[in-house]
Amino acid sequence: MPTGPTNSIVDVPGLRVGHHQRVGEGWLTGTTVVQAPDEGAVGGVDVRGGGPGTRETDLLDPRNLVERVHAVTLSGGSAFGLAAADGVLRDLYRRGVGFPMGAPGEVVPIVPGAVVFDLGRGGDFSATPDASFGARALAAATSDPPALGVVGAGTGAQAGGLKGGVGSASTVLPDGSTVAALVVVNAVGSTVDPVTGELWAGPHLVAEDLRGLGLPAALELPLPAPSRAELRRAQEEAQRSGATGGMPRTLATTVGVVATDAGLTKAECARVAGSGHDGMARAIHPIHTMYDGDTLFALATGTRGRPSPETFHLTLTAAAEVVTRAIGRAMLAARTVSTPSGTWRGYVDAFGSVLQPDR
Amino acid sequence: MPTGPTNSIVDVPGLRVGHHQRVGEGWLTGTTVVQAPDEGAVGGVDVRGGGPGTRETDLLDPRNLVERVHAVTLSGGSAFGLAAADGVLRDLYRRGVGFPMGAPGEVVPIVPGAVVFDLGRGGDFSATPDASFGARALAAATSDPPALGVVGAGTGAQAGGLKGGVGSASTVLPDGSTVAALVVVNAVGSTVDPVTGELWAGPHLVAEDLRGLGLPAALELPLPAPSRAELRRAQEEAQRSGATGGMPRTLATTVGVVATDAGLTKAECARVAGSGHDGMARAIHPIHTMYDGDTLFALATGTRGRPSPETFHLTLTAAAEVVTRAIGRAMLAARTVSTPSGTWRGYVDAFGSVLQPDR
Repeated sequence: MPTGPTNSIVDVPGLRVGHHQRVGEGWLTGTTVVQAPDEGAVGGVDVRGGGPGTRETDLLDPRNLVERVHAVTLSGGSAFGLAAADGVLRDLYRRGVGFPMGAPGEVVPIVPGAVVFDLGRGGDFSATPDASFGARALAAATSDPPALGVVGAGTGAQAGGLKGGVGSASTVLPDGSTVAALVVVNAVGSTVDPVTGELWAGPHLVAEDLRGLGLPAALELPLPAPSRAELRRAQEEAQRSGATGGMPRTLATTVGVVATDAGLTKAECARVAGSGHDGMARAIHPIHTMYDGDTLFALATGTRGRPSPETFHLTLTAAAEVVTRAIGRAMLAARTVSTPSGTWRGYVDAFGSVLQPDR
Repeated sequence: MPTGPTNSIVDVPGLRVGHHQRVGEGWLTGTTVVQAPDEGAVGGVDVRGGGPGTRETDLLDPRNLVERVHAVTLSGGSAFGLAAADGVLRDLYRRGVGFPMGAPGEVVPIVPGAVVFDLGRGGDFSATPDASFGARALAAATSDPPALGVVGAGTGAQAGGLKGGVGSASTVLPDGSTVAALVVVNAVGSTVDPVTGELWAGPHLVAEDLRGLGLPAALELPLPAPSRAELRRAQEEAQRSGATGGMPRTLATTVGVVATDAGLTKAECARVAGSGHDGMARAIHPIHTMYDGDTLFALATGTRGRPSPETFHLTLTAAAEVVTRAIGRAMLAARTVSTPSGTWRGYVDAFGSVLQPDR
């Protein structure tokens, strides 16, 4: 199935993405906002990790009243980063966007959120996003394809010892509806097959997934295999981080949003988020550990109306695929970062000149 | 079964309660913090209302890692009030209280929370608690019996057209363990039987429940019946608010904490919270509507060790009873409030001189 025009979550018309991050002087963290159209998008969530940090997920239970979400806040900062959503909420309120309570301007914006653990990676354990990060990410939100890699909520992310980050991907179903994902990859587990050095997501990538990431223009799939020396070094990194067995050396959490322009119910959105977790399972190993708070939201803007049963079946399949591909793209986009706390090599940097971007 | 020494949630040793509120100039809202001992208390949650506003509830799922909660934040302000928990989190962090991440001082405080809808009741829809409310409520937390009625998160509360507020109650089981609750009563439904004018919670109250609320010292159970004129007026209020049928005129939400000094698992805590909702059902009619986000947390400090099966059975029964009684006490403690948005009569004020406090 083809990708959408930008191969990102903004291929779902009406969605906007904004990032804000702070790097240096102890900081290595940020916030990403996925903004729905002002009338909101039907929302669902699936929490599969053992250490989640979330807000406003209970209202997404299909048994509960509120159907539409106005924005999803993804943030670094562990539980401290939940504050980012407050900034999004207050600014949406100032714009008059939210669940209507009656009188004009009396609205309650619905802003679920989830956080990833990145504390201390910039050197200062207490340098965490606050409400201003959410407000700035919202202010930066546009319908342009979002920056990927070390940006927004992915700024402090790592995955199995390599640098993690933000990825996004989209696909267009035969009926013309779009399914897309934006994922912040931050995992105890590894995105790399320790035997071959290939990204677990590799077999799921399409040619378009290599574009726009600053990789060599001539690079094609399958990705070239790393040298034995490169592979050994990456394996050592994964071992040091605990990704290949034993107790993890850090907490993690992969979070994201799956979106479609189909018209889905809340329960169907939860199902889409659940299928997205299958996509995580394909791209990260192990996943959903007790030390990851893996959480996916799903948003359905509904502009294309109700899907046929067949299209909904394909939507679930595609939800998993776009999450897998978004994770692969996050790893290809994330470049090496060094702070007083350590160095996290990007996959592209770890695996040598064959993958090095043209600069 | 007897009440504990203060007939409140602080009868569970180690728990502390703090309130902060703002009243006047458009404000009528506040925040209440139930603080666990620094090592935390095992936590659970049960969300039964159709419009919940919550944070950090997913981590309380028994399948998930984190076991201990350091504080629960209850707040007015609907989704805006979720910010109050940020202030609690940051101040606990400054004190070094939280889930240990490794190095000294590197902790993540676990602060679940739930909010009630009270927007606009003070006159200004946007006058809502922020992080400073949580910080101030935490700073005010003591092991003294908490103030009840129009205080903290109950400041802007209403229930079926009457003034709502904060209530608390405790009981001591035969094995010596304590079960207690603190509840913020804010409900679409009514706490009053429209036929008799009696509090639904009335038959569950014990003599001790009338003490410390400023009621006439000579007042005994059963509470005196209101005059027909008083009853008619209260019925009209309930009808105006939509409590007695038809569509509710406002959103609501009753939230609270049930606590014990028994040693419970997370799953058992969730069960205790669930039984607490049965206590809500007895005291408020209707309850758990699509326009209430009713949420109860449970905390187990564990100082008394594991309960026997019989004691756990009694704990569940008592959880419902202390919630019912806490709701009754909230209604007896809440006095009439008038703002530019309206007047909410206290139950004691609504039902005439027989219930009027000695002043």
